[in-house]
Amino acid sequence: VPDVAIVTLTTDFGTADHYVAAMKAALLGECPDATLVDVTHAVPRQDVRSGAFTLERAVAAFPAGTVHLAVVDPGVGTERRLVVVLVNRSVVVCPDNGLITWAWRRHPRPRPRAYEVTWRPPLCSHTFHGRDVMAPVAGRWAAGRRRKGPPVDPLLLDLDLSATSRAGVIVHVDVYGNATTNVLAPERPPEGRWHAAGRDVGPLRRTYADVPVGRPVALVGSSGLVEVAVRDGSAADVLGLRVGDPVELL
Amino acid sequence: VPDVAIVTLTTDFGTADHYVAAMKAALLGECPDATLVDVTHAVPRQDVRSGAFTLERAVAAFPAGTVHLAVVDPGVGTERRLVVVLVNRSVVVCPDNGLITWAWRRHPRPRPRAYEVTWRPPLCSHTFHGRDVMAPVAGRWAAGRRRKGPPVDPLLLDLDLSATSRAGVIVHVDVYGNATTNVLAPERPPEGRWHAAGRDVGPLRRTYADVPVGRPVALVGSSGLVEVAVRDGSAADVLGLRVGDPVELL
Amino acid sequence: VPDVAIVTLTTDFGTADHYVAAMKAALLGECPDATLVDVTHAVPRQDVRSGAFTLERAVAAFPAGTVHLAVVDPGVGTERRLVVVLVNRSVVVCPDNGLITWAWRRHPRPRPRAYEVTWRPPLCSHTFHGRDVMAPVAGRWAAGRRRKGPPVDPLLLDLDLSATSRAGVIVHVDVYGNATTNVLAPERPPEGRWHAAGRDVGPLRRTYADVPVGRPVALVGSSGLVEVAVRDGSAADVLGLRVGDPVELL
Repeated sequence: VPDVAIVTLTTDFGTADHYVAAMKAALLGECPDATLVDVTHAVPRQDVRSGAFTLERAVAAFPAGTVHLAVVDPGVGTERRLVVVLVNRSVVVCPDNGLITWAWRRHPRPRPRAYEVTWRPPLCSHTFHGRDVMAPVAGRWAAGRRRKGPPVDPLLLDLDLSATSRAGVIVHVDVYGNATTNVLAPERPPEGRWHAAGRDVGPLRRTYADVPVGRPVALVGSSGLVEVAVRDGSAADVLGLRVGDPVELL
Repeated sequence: VPDVAIVTLTTDFGTADHYVAAMKAALLGECPDATLVDVTHAVPRQDVRSGAFTLERAVAAFPAGTVHLAVVDPGVGTERRLVVVLVNRSVVVCPDNGLITWAWRRHPRPRPRAYEVTWRPPLCSHTFHGRDVMAPVAGRWAAGRRRKGPPVDPLLLDLDLSATSRAGVIVHVDVYGNATTNVLAPERPPEGRWHAAGRDVGPLRRTYADVPVGRPVALVGSSGLVEVAVRDGSAADVLGLRVGDPVELL
Repeated sequence: VPDVAIVTLTTDFGTADHYVAAMKAALLGECPDATLVDVTHAVPRQDVRSGAFTLERAVAAFPAGTVHLAVVDPGVGTERRLVVVLVNRSVVVCPDNGLITWAWRRHPRPRPRAYEVTWRPPLCSHTFHGRDVMAPVAGRWAAGRRRKGPPVDPLLLDLDLSATSRAGVIVHVDVYGNATTNVLAPERPPEGRWHAAGRDVGPLRRTYADVPVGRPVALVGSSGLVEVAVRDGSAADVLGLRVGDPVELL
């Protein structure tokens, strides 16, 4: 048991309703001294791929031993599994619907392992397994009561992640309008100019301030991925970029 | 004094300003090791009835001994009372304007009791009793310094809550567009089909996945109340449902 | 080292992305038992002046010893400095871009002092010093490891703050549409009627309820500044008030 138990939460619940608090109540019921950290509750509704990207960022950021509870669960009430995944020396509790994909792929060592959650409470709703199953399980892992179900191969989404890529797609657009790609930061940036959705955004630079205000820039973002931005502006707006748009080095 | 003091917050303050943090500062000033949990700060502005629904969900979810601070307070600066309410083995601090109604009615045992808060600080603003009065009082209860004022009968809003109802109204529409009613989950669901705002939404089902994508469904929601939803869609949008619309079993 | 370490966060990051959580991970990495409090992450993007107002409200509210991490940082990647500021018996970690102005000016005793943050981590991004530099520094101060860099004179924005003013400007419009000015609450309110953007809003009153519903009112807000509001309404909407509009006593 770690001295301090951190539990993060990543969901598509929004913050207008009581749903996040209901999960926190269940977490604190199992692990009263947990430190709870919201990653975001603004994953686009039922967008498992977007949630997977954000969840990996949490898995990368927090200290070893952190428990990550991630609930983007369009399949609640169907036969989809729930899983506990050990990855990057941390614990993820989530539906087995691909939400673990980014974390699994970017943190291959030590080798990630997934276990099915077969436990169900005596009274279990059919519409809110985040509160009734996943939060209690996450709380118990945070409290050091680490019961593993049967090992399983988790569902992984199609995801190309290559550090040698000269091409990829936009995978996330943040609140500033910065567009992150699935191209891992090259150790030795190759010559050439990046193009996003067909628009030339120049060679790979160091930071926003390397271009004039209002101009596009390609750089290695804080996530270690090639990112397309506009200095003091929104690449999404200025360049019309959206998730799925192609990027390539020419 | 409980080992861990949980204090939840439910307000209509939004999260763009410093107001919520000002209350948390006052709470931590009285109870430095409290675990603070936001329920929501997006109660529609001055909507006491909506806040009352959300507050009850917090009162139902958290462990015994939790202190709930709820501030939807259009009457600040008038002679409206402030109250401490003991309900569901928890403590609620709020204005005496009906905000306690749902918690009071859904948790009749042990019998809820309310006490007026007569304490005021030496320097008290006329516009922010959440920070100046209610947060310090909540912090003191969380810290185990539980001073009761005179017992009072709290103001209760008109609210029909009956487990045998075959009719009711929509009381809350959540961020997904799911519409919750004031009809308590029947132990033995009667025969018949539910109608919401005059639209047939079928018999009571188990979960969203019991109907095809895009179709309406009536079910017992995670709040234990009859709910009207649309699978992978928004009942509010698809069926045009709003708070106050009638539901009935025909 | 205080028994309980409080760290507040004020940013323009929004809450849709993982950026706030990345800073919290860095904070908890340095100070695992810190109590983290969000002030707001909705400072208008890159609006240092607005962030400065909100940061001061946090500095005023929290107990002595609190560490405030404030990141509104349009200059990231340029040569702008980072600073630790001791003010109001608290600690602020922020970019040296004027963000400290309000706190510095409203809390002159004990005399505030600023120190440059010269430390940089071995691996430091060029786009996210909030995570890579400021959060670890704030975490170390919270944990009692208080290393000061060279003393500096921080950049201060132009800001008129006078308790004897009969005129000023609107400096903040909150989520309710209440407009706060830079006019400190007069100890003995002078005779006369306040005008906001040329509209008569009457003499200084005690609270919202001193005027009928829908009517404008001037009062001393909870921040200790003259504020213009509309009872149960939005002064911003009803009176068309915006940041920068003049107010005066006639």
